Amino acid sequence: MNGAPVPAATAALATFLAESRWSDVPKSIRHEGKRALLNWLGCALGGCRDPTVDILVNGLREFAGPPHATLIGRREKFDAPNAALVNGVSSNILDFDDTHMPTVIHPSVPVASAALALAEFRPVTGARLLHAFVLGVESACRIGRALSPAHYAAGWHISSTCGVFGAAAAAGKLLDLSASQMTHALGIAATQSSGLTEMLGSMAKSYNLGHAAKSGLLAARLAAENFTSSTRALEAPRGFANVLGKIPRLDAITGGLGAGWEIANNAYKPYPCGIVLHAAIDGCLALRAEHALRPESIARVTLRLHPLALQLAGKAAPATGLESKLSASHAAAVGLLTGAAGVSAFSDACARDPAVIALRDKIVTEPDDGLDKAAAHVRIALSDGSTRERSVPHALGSLERPMSDGDLEAKFKALAAGAYSECHSWDVIELTWMLDTLHDASQFVRAMQPEPGKP
Amino acid sequence: MNGAPVPAATAALATFLAESRWSDVPKSIRHEGKRALLNWLGCALGGCRDPTVDILVNGLREFAGPPHATLIGRREKFDAPNAALVNGVSSNILDFDDTHMPTVIHPSVPVASAALALAEFRPVTGARLLHAFVLGVESACRIGRALSPAHYAAGWHISSTCGVFGAAAAAGKLLDLSASQMTHALGIAATQSSGLTEMLGSMAKSYNLGHAAKSGLLAARLAAENFTSSTRALEAPRGFANVLGKIPRLDAITGGLGAGWEIANNAYKPYPCGIVLHAAIDGCLALRAEHALRPESIARVTLRLHPLALQLAGKAAPATGLESKLSASHAAAVGLLTGAAGVSAFSDACARDPAVIALRDKIVTEPDDGLDKAAAHVRIALSDGSTRERSVPHALGSLERPMSDGDLEAKFKALAAGAYSECHSWDVIELTWMLDTLHDASQFVRAMQPEPGKP
Repeated sequence: MNGAPVPAATAALATFLAESRWSDVPKSIRHEGKRALLNWLGCALGGCRDPTVDILVNGLREFAGPPHATLIGRREKFDAPNAALVNGVSSNILDFDDTHMPTVIHPSVPVASAALALAEFRPVTGARLLHAFVLGVESACRIGRALSPAHYAAGWHISSTCGVFGAAAAAGKLLDLSASQMTHALGIAATQSSGLTEMLGSMAKSYNLGHAAKSGLLAARLAAENFTSSTRALEAPRGFANVLGKIPRLDAITGGLGAGWEIANNAYKPYPCGIVLHAAIDGCLALRAEHALRPESIARVTLRLHPLALQLAGKAAPATGLESKLSASHAAAVGLLTGAAGVSAFSDACARDPAVIALRDKIVTEPDDGLDKAAAHVRIALSDGSTRERSVPHALGSLERPMSDGDLEAKFKALAAGAYSECHSWDVIELTWMLDTLHDASQFVRAMQPEPGKP
Repeated sequence: MNGAPVPAATAALATFLAESRWSDVPKSIRHEGKRALLNWLGCALGGCRDPTVDILVNGLREFAGPPHATLIGRREKFDAPNAALVNGVSSNILDFDDTHMPTVIHPSVPVASAALALAEFRPVTGARLLHAFVLGVESACRIGRALSPAHYAAGWHISSTCGVFGAAAAAGKLLDLSASQMTHALGIAATQSSGLTEMLGSMAKSYNLGHAAKSGLLAARLAAENFTSSTRALEAPRGFANVLGKIPRLDAITGGLGAGWEIANNAYKPYPCGIVLHAAIDGCLALRAEHALRPESIARVTLRLHPLALQLAGKAAPATGLESKLSASHAAAVGLLTGAAGVSAFSDACARDPAVIALRDKIVTEPDDGLDKAAAHVRIALSDGSTRERSVPHALGSLERPMSDGDLEAKFKALAAGAYSECHSWDVIELTWMLDTLHDASQFVRAMQPEPGKP
């Protein structure tokens, strides 16, 4: 810290949040908010039957309060903070949720989980929900930018450490906090901010994001009662940014508020595996479709990827579904074999499927530092001696080549299929695109409950 | 980090906790546990009507689950995690709780708040409660030793960041976790560990400790359902000790487990103000009693204190009760005027009392670096020209001159008086000393509810 005056980042952000009007939010940003919510909902429906969620629900059940808020895709309802926790875990568990590319924050999980649970408890219009959601994403991502990349590199799970601010901001906006109350909400969020990347690979990884959703919601609720915190929680010498960051750039929090929107930098995954594998999958799916490739005609597949991509996701013989998410050869094999790479492509069963393993063993990976980290080159040698090749500079789902609304709808339907009937998933999609016209935002959530009589 | 193998601190501590038997705990340590619990209970009763607690209870009420656990000194009951949160705030709000001297952790607040709330929900014997409590204190203080003093100096509120482990350990012992489950409980605690010293001076200061109690309780409850975390949450390169500490000494966690007990280093405050002022108050109270001093006979008082003590607590003209807790001249004045220095001596009303201010203005402070930081010299010049002097090398409540059991009983009765009738406070004192013989530990808590018909 030098001697220059420290900008009052907490109060400035809080004032922006309290004073923001729906009419300030550009149309394209509103639409991006809907896309993020649809993607988040699909992830929650896809993850809601995971054993991690069952265990969590069993552990919380006896403590849960009045059943105001839906556990997405499940029969139980919990009090709003506990529902935010469970939905945060459900929507992150598949590693299929969105990513704010400049920070690698998964913003929708903590923000939407808090906002939706609160919206069931205290009804608001769809426009207010969408507004609060966009502001929550903005808060989490700006605070993340102020600390990136040193914060994540030091071992902080940035989606939860910064997500708690997003949850507090969104919940605070839904509760109509004043600028002063919002300052305290951000402060109460700051002092609950936690989450270690050491938890990756265990159930506690997704717990981090759920805990952020719950803690942020409580921060806003307590601030609404005039519970107080430091008013300089972000910028003080012993505040969040200095204690959890190295040389934080506070102007990333306050600079140009309202002029640009961080949700514009949000990306959605078409495949539930390491993002560095997405271009290779794209290439395999395209070649398979274009040439009607059959596995028995394939002699050898050569995947060229950036060396870092292979370091992250170069596992040659994954034994479990979790490991297969970081295996380029598995991802390519399953894509070539089935023409798809959805949730079931990265299950334990699929990782152990003899047909997948047979094809996987024909795949070699080669590092190529001439490629972008997110690019791939696929070359397939057929048994007749001919070859097929495809370069993929930008994967589907990247900021350069975003998933279309139709892609997101298809992803949602596939994820919802387990928890949910086809017919209802169309209802939810419809409600998402018209969210800003709904009188009661919780319609959107209630439409997601399993049909009576279904297990 | 050098290349030496990192000891498996998490698993070693968890194994110790799971395998510890009540018969392993020495008699003197059992007694110290009772003293700490009596002190904690008194603090909770004294604090339970604070506006901070009212606001917190109002904010949580609509989310609270089944009323299994007492909010100490209040009519409401909440689910166990929310009760742990509220009782954690109540028992810390007066700054009258205990202090583990090597780390400045206030260990009983997070540990007892979690353990007692759980004991109401899942009945256990008094001996089991006391055992779990002592183990929780041990865990929090050992982890604190591994990170001290850099951790607190960096801005971490050590009572909450380390307290969450103590709460998890105590709750885990009450739930009979296996060593493996206890490892995960410590891991789930680690990833929820939070709390900034920036919150000191606001309501969020005490919230930190309550949040630690609640989060630790949940960590243990989820671990009992086999929810998983990293198994190296304390010692891994991206684990708690490295991320929140600088050059942590992990051997402080694992060295000599069971051979010595950290609760033996626990101190109790006779006066609810900065600990560096306690010797000065002792001196004033002793001179007043010995010489039957009346305020009008006092011409001038000279307090000599260590320079650091004056830096921390040298405020000459405090305007509020909170400020008066860090004012040597206020503390001395009120002690000389009233012959006591309890909770009411540090209220807003007392700080503004003209009689206190008149005497306070006759008091001068002098730095003396020949004195210990916790010592004081008091010299009173009387209007007849004579002087009275007293040196206090160790204040009452220090490890060198601990409060007696009788002192702790008197402190408890004074604190309980507001929330509670004299007769019942005797019951609680009695139950505390016989806690290890109770069939149901929650008797001890239930005896603390306000009498029917009292406000």
